[in-house]
Amino acid sequence: MGDGEAETGPLATSWHSNKFLNPHTDGVVLPVLHLNGYKIANPTVLARIPEDELAALMHGYGHKPHFFTGGFEDEDHATAHRRYAELLDVVLDEIAQIKADAAARDAAGQPQERPLWPMIVFRTPKGWTGPKEVDGKRTENSWRSHQVPLANARDTDEHLKNLEDWLRSYRPEELFDDDGALIAEITAANPPDALRMSTNPITNGGLVLRDLRMPDWRDYGVEVDGSMTEAPRILGNFLRDIITLNPDNFRIFGPDETASNRLQNVFEVTDKQWMAGYLPNDEGEAMARVGRVMEMLSEHQCQGWLEGYLLTGRHGLMNSYEAFIHLIDSMFNQHAKWLKVTNEIPWRRPIASLNYLLSSHVWRQDHNGFSHQDPGFIDHVVNKKADIVRVYLPPDTNTLLSTYDHVLRSKQYVNVVVAGKQPAPSFLSVDEALKHCTRGLGIWDWAGTEVAGESPDVVLGCAGDVPTLEAVSAAALLREHIPDLKVRLVNVVDLMRLQDEKEHPHGLSDREFDTIFTPDKPVVFAYHGYPWLIHRLTYRRTGHSNLHVRGYVEEGTTTTPFDMLMLNNLDRYHLVMDVIDRVPGLATRYAGLRQQMVDQRLEIRAYTRATGQDSPAVRAWVRPDAGETATVEGGPAMPQDTGGDNE
Amino acid sequence: MGDGEAETGPLATSWHSNKFLNPHTDGVVLPVLHLNGYKIANPTVLARIPEDELAALMHGYGHKPHFFTGGFEDEDHATAHRRYAELLDVVLDEIAQIKADAAARDAAGQPQERPLWPMIVFRTPKGWTGPKEVDGKRTENSWRSHQVPLANARDTDEHLKNLEDWLRSYRPEELFDDDGALIAEITAANPPDALRMSTNPITNGGLVLRDLRMPDWRDYGVEVDGSMTEAPRILGNFLRDIITLNPDNFRIFGPDETASNRLQNVFEVTDKQWMAGYLPNDEGEAMARVGRVMEMLSEHQCQGWLEGYLLTGRHGLMNSYEAFIHLIDSMFNQHAKWLKVTNEIPWRRPIASLNYLLSSHVWRQDHNGFSHQDPGFIDHVVNKKADIVRVYLPPDTNTLLSTYDHVLRSKQYVNVVVAGKQPAPSFLSVDEALKHCTRGLGIWDWAGTEVAGESPDVVLGCAGDVPTLEAVSAAALLREHIPDLKVRLVNVVDLMRLQDEKEHPHGLSDREFDTIFTPDKPVVFAYHGYPWLIHRLTYRRTGHSNLHVRGYVEEGTTTTPFDMLMLNNLDRYHLVMDVIDRVPGLATRYAGLRQQMVDQRLEIRAYTRATGQDSPAVRAWVRPDAGETATVEGGPAMPQDTGGDNE
Repeated sequence: MGDGEAETGPLATSWHSNKFLNPHTDGVVLPVLHLNGYKIANPTVLARIPEDELAALMHGYGHKPHFFTGGFEDEDHATAHRRYAELLDVVLDEIAQIKADAAARDAAGQPQERPLWPMIVFRTPKGWTGPKEVDGKRTENSWRSHQVPLANARDTDEHLKNLEDWLRSYRPEELFDDDGALIAEITAANPPDALRMSTNPITNGGLVLRDLRMPDWRDYGVEVDGSMTEAPRILGNFLRDIITLNPDNFRIFGPDETASNRLQNVFEVTDKQWMAGYLPNDEGEAMARVGRVMEMLSEHQCQGWLEGYLLTGRHGLMNSYEAFIHLIDSMFNQHAKWLKVTNEIPWRRPIASLNYLLSSHVWRQDHNGFSHQDPGFIDHVVNKKADIVRVYLPPDTNTLLSTYDHVLRSKQYVNVVVAGKQPAPSFLSVDEALKHCTRGLGIWDWAGTEVAGESPDVVLGCAGDVPTLEAVSAAALLREHIPDLKVRLVNVVDLMRLQDEKEHPHGLSDREFDTIFTPDKPVVFAYHGYPWLIHRLTYRRTGHSNLHVRGYVEEGTTTTPFDMLMLNNLDRYHLVMDVIDRVPGLATRYAGLRQQMVDQRLEIRAYTRATGQDSPAVRAWVRPDAGETATVEGGPAMPQDTGGDNE
Repeated sequence: MGDGEAETGPLATSWHSNKFLNPHTDGVVLPVLHLNGYKIANPTVLARIPEDELAALMHGYGHKPHFFTGGFEDEDHATAHRRYAELLDVVLDEIAQIKADAAARDAAGQPQERPLWPMIVFRTPKGWTGPKEVDGKRTENSWRSHQVPLANARDTDEHLKNLEDWLRSYRPEELFDDDGALIAEITAANPPDALRMSTNPITNGGLVLRDLRMPDWRDYGVEVDGSMTEAPRILGNFLRDIITLNPDNFRIFGPDETASNRLQNVFEVTDKQWMAGYLPNDEGEAMARVGRVMEMLSEHQCQGWLEGYLLTGRHGLMNSYEAFIHLIDSMFNQHAKWLKVTNEIPWRRPIASLNYLLSSHVWRQDHNGFSHQDPGFIDHVVNKKADIVRVYLPPDTNTLLSTYDHVLRSKQYVNVVVAGKQPAPSFLSVDEALKHCTRGLGIWDWAGTEVAGESPDVVLGCAGDVPTLEAVSAAALLREHIPDLKVRLVNVVDLMRLQDEKEHPHGLSDREFDTIFTPDKPVVFAYHGYPWLIHRLTYRRTGHSNLHVRGYVEEGTTTTPFDMLMLNNLDRYHLVMDVIDRVPGLATRYAGLRQQMVDQRLEIRAYTRATGQDSPAVRAWVRPDAGETATVEGGPAMPQDTGGDNE
C-alpha cells in the first residue's frame, strides 16, 4: 500500500482480510501504510486526520499500529534507516510471538484466536531525496514530486541544473567506477541466487506451482435420463474431492455465495475460514478457524485474495453472481494485462489460471430483478488479448464438469465459466460431453432434423444453458409442426470457437465455420448474453449477413424464468417465429403456425400473470430422442422448490 | 447502509466522505450502520469484532458512534422503538449543535472545523418479526432470513402453517376492515402531500432541478490557425463561468485529477473542498473549506457523490482517466438501470444527466504504460438501453465545447465524452463545430479529395481526436501520392449515429448511412477504442463487409504518442497501406508507395528508439486546406513540455 491511498475501495477493504488469517496456519502479514502525505494533486486524507483518528482506524481494522516518521527536516538518511530497522525488529518480534503463541495453542488443542496484528504507519516526505524545489515551488514533500518530479530538463539551464543537482546528490562517483560500472561493494549486495526476483518463489510463484491432483471428472457425471440436476451442485462433488486430494494448495473464494451458487457439497470436507468472533449458534454452519473456502461479501476482496493465491503458486476459483462480477472489471483488467506481459518474460514461470464460475446468472430472477441482470462481463473479458482469455458456456452438468476439469489444469489464462445453478436437464452423457467440450462446439443431430447428405434449411445455434434448452425445444416444435424442414442444431460451449482463427487460438478456420454454420443458410442463434457479442465475434464469417441473434436486451424484472425469456424474445416460440421469418418460403405457408406461436406466448404470459408461476407447458422437458419411451416427466423446479437462492 | 455490509469497497469508503462535509454549508449526514448480524450465508464481519474495535473503526472514519441494540430476547417492539426514538433525539440534537456552532463560527468569520459527526450502530436481529424457526432451524436472527425467510409454503402443511403464523403475527384483523382495506387509523398516518415520495424533493430530486445558466460556448472557441490547444483546458474556461453563474447547483467531481485532466482554470473562481487538516504550505493549492470541486482518489467515492448530487436535483460532471473508469462499471450499471426504470414512472421528474469526461486516454502513454490502457468503458456503456446512453468523441477543442454545452443541458442520460488533454490541432471553427456536432457526424470535404458529382473511391472514417489526426494526415498523404484517388473523409463525433435508427434514437437511417459511407466502397475507419465496437454498431449496414477498422488492439507500453499508434497499426502510414490494400486496382500500381509507408514506419521507430522522442515528421501538423500559406509550424508538444500529466 503506497502513497497513503488507503482511501480507495479495494485497498481499504484489504485491511479486513486480516480478520480471516489464522496465525498458526497462514502466512505472515505486515501491512505498512506508507503515508507520504500526497498523491497526484492533493494531500491524502489519512495524512491529514489527527493521529488518534488514524490509530483508531487501524485498530478498527484489527491492527496494532506502530507509527514511524522519518526523513523530515533533513534528518540524516542513515539515521532514519537505522531507526526504521529498529522498529522492524520490534514488529517482527511481535509477529514471531503471535506465531509462537498460536503454535502453542495448537499443540495444546486450544482454538486459535485472532491476534491484533501489528502494522506500521510509515511517514516520510513524498519524493524523499528528489528535487527540493523546482521553479520556486516546493517539490519534495509535495504532490509535485508525484511520478515525474522534474517535468523538463531541456528547456532551461535552471532545469538542467535541477536535474544535475538531484542526480549528483546520490554521489555517483562513489557508486560507479571509471567505466560507468557499479563498484564491487554495491554489486556484492545483490541478492544471492535463491533470493533473486526471478528465482524467488515469493515473486515468481510459478516456481513452486504443483499440478493439482485431479480425480477423474467422469466419475461424477450424471445420467441423461430426463431428470433435472443443478450443475454446480454436481461440480461441488468434484471440487470436494479436489480439496481432499490437494489439502494445501487449492482454495475456493466467493462473496458469501458458495452455497447460494450450489457448491455446498465442498462443506462435507472443509469449512469457511473465519477468525472473527463465534456465537454458540454457529454450530453446524461450516465455519472454522481453518478452512479451504474464503467468503467475504466483497468481490474486490475475493478477487484480491485469489490473485495473491495464484501469484504465489497455488490454485483456486472464484464463484460469484454474473451481474456483480463487473465490480472487479478493473482488477480483472490488470491481472489479464499482467499475464500478457509475463508471457513475454522468459524467467517468469506460468501460474495457474484465474477461474471464475458465474452460476447465478441473468436468466433466473425469481427473487431478484433488473438490478441483478447484466451478462456483460463476457464482453468486457473478450476485449483482452486472445491468448489470455477463455469463455465457456457449458449447457449442462456433464459439460460443466468437463469444462472445469480443463480450466483447473490450465495455466496463464483467465477462464470465465457461466453455468446456471437451477435444476436443469442434461443433454449429453459423459462421453458425449468429453467430445463436445474438446471440440468446443458441435452439431447435436439428435436435436435437429437433418437429412444425411443434404444441406440443412436452417441452423439453430445456441450458447449457454438456458438458451440451449430453448433452441432444443424450438427444434422439437419445428419437427412437430414442419416435419420436412431440415434443422441443424449447433451448440457452442467454447465461445472463442466462433472467432476467426487469426484472432483467437481457439477460433475455427473459415472452412470449418462454413461447414458447420453453412455459408448461405439462415442461422438463428440463441445466446446467453448481449446478442451483439456474437456479431462482434463472427462479423468476418462468410454467412454473417444470414446470422440472426437473440439474447439479453436489457429487459427484465423480478419474474418467472420463462417470462424473462419472453421479455427478451429468446423463448422457444420466438425462435420458431424467427425461423419462419427467415427461411425462404416458410412465411406464407406457415403463417398459421406463426400465429400459434404468438398466441402461445400470450397464453403463457396470462398464466404467469394470474398464478405467479410458469405454465406447465414450459416446465416439462423430455429429451427429444427419448420420444415416447421417456418415463420421467421432469421439469425445472419452481422458485419455491429451490431454497437458498437468496441474494 | 443495510445488513452490516460495510465491508464492501464503495460503502466502506463512503465513510471517509464525511471528512469533506462543511457543517455550515452542506447537508446533514446521519449514517446508520444497521448491523443485523448476517448476510447471504454468513455472519457479517463488523458484527463479530469486539465493540471496542468497531467503535475505533467508526472513530477512525471520523464519527462519534452511538450504539443501539434492540429486538433481542423478545423485547417488546414498542419499547425498542421508543428507545430508538430517544436515541435519535439525542443524535439529532448533536447534529443541530454542530450546525449551530458552524453557523456561529461563520458569522464570526472563523474557519470551519471538521466535527466528529455522530453515527448510529443499530443492532437488531436479522429478519426481526419474521419466522423464528423453519424446519427446526433458527431463521430470525440468522442468515436464513436473508431476502426469502420461508422458501416454500405450498409443499408441506407445516410450511403453510409457518406462513400463516408469521402473517398473523402482524395482527391483520387490527389493520384491515371487512373489505380488506386498511383502516382509517392507519391510512391517516400516510404522509401529507408534500412528504409523499412522489412529491418530496428529497426522493424525487427532479422536482427542484433548475436548468443551468449557461454562457454561450461559442465565446470560448478557438481559432483554427494551425496552433495547438489542450481541449479540456479551454473547456475549463467554460466550466469556470458555469460555476460562477450557478454557485449552488453545479459541482465537478474527480479522483484527484481535475488539474491533471486540464480543467485547472476552474480554480480561478473556486477551490477544492477540503475539511481535513491544513498545513501552512497548502497556501496557493486551491484548497478551501467550501468549494465546487470535490476530489478524492477513489473513483467509487466520486461516482457515489455525483449520483447523490444528481438525484437531489443538481448538476455535475466527473472527470477521470479512461483506463480506470472501469472501477465504477458496476455503479454505472445500476445508475443506468435506474434511469431506464424511472423513465417509465410518470411521477418521477427527470434529473440532470450523469456526465463523464475522460481526457487522459489510451493514446498518450508518455509517463504511464500498459496498465493505463483500456478504452473499453465505451463498450461497457453501449450495452445499456439506447435511450439512456450517449457516447461522444469530439475531435478538437471547439467540438468538445459544443458537446459539453449539449450534455450539460441534457436530462436522464449517461453521457460519456472522451477527449484528450494534450496539445492538439483544431479542425473546425466554432460555426463548423456547431453544425458538425448537431449532425453528429459529417464529411470533411477540405480534408478529402472528392470530385463533385462523383462517388468516392474510398471512405476514410474516424472517431476520436487522435485517430482523426491520423485519418486527416493519411488523406493528405493520399492526395500527395495518388492525386487522382477520390477520398472522402468522414468524422464521427456522436458514436451512436453509426447504429441503426431502430436500435438507437441517434442512429442514422440506412439510406443516410449508405449515402455517407457508400454501400459498396471500401471504408477504412480509424477508431479511438477497440475496433470491433465499430463492427458491432454497424453490422446491419449495407456496406458492412467493406468496412475495415483500426483501433486499440491491446498493444502498448510506456512510449511516445506515435509509437503507441504504430504498435496498434492506427498510424497514418498504416491507414495509407490499408487504402492501397483495399481499393481495387491500387495494390499493384502503388506497391512502391506502400513500401515507402513501411519504410517510413521503420524509420520513425528507429528515431524513437534512438532519441526517446517522436520524429519531427509526425510532430508538425498543418491543416491541409491551409496549404502553403500556413505560417505556424505547430506540433504536438513533447512529453517533457507538458508538466502535470502525473498519474
